[in-house]
Amino acid sequence: MPEIRQNIATKEWVVISTERAKRPEDFKSIKEKKALEEHSSKCPFCPGNEQMTPYESFVINDENGKWKIRVIPNKYPAVFQEGTVEYKMEGIKRKVTGVGTAEVIIESAKHNMLIPFMPEKDLEKVISVYKERYLAAEKDRRIKMIIVFKNYGEQAGASIEHPHSQLIAIPVVPFHIRYRIEEAMRYFDETGECVFCKMLEEELKLQERIVVETGHFVSFVPYAALAPFHMWILPRRHTESFGEINDAEITDLAKNLKLTISKLYYGLENPDYNFVIRSVPVNERGKEYYHWYITIMPRLIKTAGFEIGTGMSINSSLPENDAKFLREIKIR
Amino acid sequence: MPEIRQNIATKEWVVISTERAKRPEDFKSIKEKKALEEHSSKCPFCPGNEQMTPYESFVINDENGKWKIRVIPNKYPAVFQEGTVEYKMEGIKRKVTGVGTAEVIIESAKHNMLIPFMPEKDLEKVISVYKERYLAAEKDRRIKMIIVFKNYGEQAGASIEHPHSQLIAIPVVPFHIRYRIEEAMRYFDETGECVFCKMLEEELKLQERIVVETGHFVSFVPYAALAPFHMWILPRRHTESFGEINDAEITDLAKNLKLTISKLYYGLENPDYNFVIRSVPVNERGKEYYHWYITIMPRLIKTAGFEIGTGMSINSSLPENDAKFLREIKIR
Repeated sequence: MPEIRQNIATKEWVVISTERAKRPEDFKSIKEKKALEEHSSKCPFCPGNEQMTPYESFVINDENGKWKIRVIPNKYPAVFQEGTVEYKMEGIKRKVTGVGTAEVIIESAKHNMLIPFMPEKDLEKVISVYKERYLAAEKDRRIKMIIVFKNYGEQAGASIEHPHSQLIAIPVVPFHIRYRIEEAMRYFDETGECVFCKMLEEELKLQERIVVETGHFVSFVPYAALAPFHMWILPRRHTESFGEINDAEITDLAKNLKLTISKLYYGLENPDYNFVIRSVPVNERGKEYYHWYITIMPRLIKTAGFEIGTGMSINSSLPENDAKFLREIKIR
Repeated sequence: MPEIRQNIATKEWVVISTERAKRPEDFKSIKEKKALEEHSSKCPFCPGNEQMTPYESFVINDENGKWKIRVIPNKYPAVFQEGTVEYKMEGIKRKVTGVGTAEVIIESAKHNMLIPFMPEKDLEKVISVYKERYLAAEKDRRIKMIIVFKNYGEQAGASIEHPHSQLIAIPVVPFHIRYRIEEAMRYFDETGECVFCKMLEEELKLQERIVVETGHFVSFVPYAALAPFHMWILPRRHTESFGEINDAEITDLAKNLKLTISKLYYGLENPDYNFVIRSVPVNERGKEYYHWYITIMPRLIKTAGFEIGTGMSINSSLPENDAKFLREIKIR
């Protein structure tokens, strides 16, 4: 009998469809990825091609004065840096000017420096750049919501293969976010607890869906995982915004994220994936009932009419099996 | 300057990203589709292979006693027909038994009978079968929500190429649906009007996003279309559920749907797409503020981290341009 599971925090429903169950092996190498070179002469993100991209907004250099991490405005920004926030409502036409920040974080000068190969110290630097840019975007009074995310591979919507992530800051709070915050608030009002802390506590007690535990972070496959090998990385310390991450946590997140992504890479033969850092909206800073986290979504399946029509998901993989499979992948 | 548009009915936000704008030509023939044969000996949905699928739950025969449309239980059902609805809540584990209906509607005995080639009379029969199965599923007291949908092509999640659609009936109402109904109710309470009727009225007045107008239905690209060439087909008559469609409307919907899908087929060279018939949940029948409709989503782009993180969309195509392009595609 299939189960329809609900995530206690997000209230999302997912059909865990045992009839369509696959083994982890069935998800492997959907398509062969070619090995990348360390440098690509045509790549706009490779050293030497800096003139192909807008001038950098932030940069970290190595000891020789060459850039290690480079932050640039997106050449094709979803939202524009300049302008004022203006709402217009005219009959059925409701709109806001598309102002905000759209940045690309080039994670390494090396074209082939995927997270599983990256020294922890370097990944730590990338995460600290995320924080730097997050706090910079937050200073802009027009901004309501900031997300930092990574699209890896074509199925995940990446158009450039050079390792990069993105920050987008927008002037609206979508109801998708508002809904989560309200649910967390309701749980807090009823129980006096953070629903995310509760989930973490229970997952640590049960152990069956845990993937990687480090000092400050825990990665796990949620009980109501939306898709095969969907994972969350939760900070153990209760804070509502990624902007609150401290140095010790940055060091530890580099360790956890590298291990977690490496397990996907080696276990499922380099699948495409997205990760997103989810924080409270800017104007909700300080709200005690919310908890920031990272969601990692491998793109192994296609969504279809059922997902469009219901907003629910069908997961053909049992979360407990996925977690066990990933736990058992050894990373040296 | 990009615009962030909001759909007045669903409250969904979408960034209309002029910087990433593409011409309709850029979406064409992402990959070549091979021409289909009229019969495929390996296809489980082709005549002669009926033993490869479960026994039919409904069938329509032609004048020679051969089946024309065949409805079968899904061989790999997301939800099971047998069983009782049981809720369990145990700490973070919240679940419902996955009972309900999962049916496949085989639209034609011919393996290559795509909607653009199908006689209107035959498509009319397919739609009347949708209605028959919708009403049959609605009689099941365990069911809260029914969707009828079609996944066409690999990018849209179809695994079998023989023309088919699906019906899934589930024992829960997801918040994605609840939210829409609440928004429609709020609009009704404030204005005394159905928000969907209002949208249709304005779209007909403006004309700039209309694609196909027939006697009882109007297809158009919504003002806040979520993706390139996203369309809605709205019935002119205000009813809350697809279960209410009458014979004259079925005849007209066949005409409108065929024209609308044909414009996609010829204009964009046979793209993959999903369509979904959206109705009020079963227990909300009779609610005067809701309006059923069909959403058509061509799968021309990939969703990425921004969509996962915000629940919003980025549309690189201007809805007014998409509608004009489709209007100008001539179907003989």
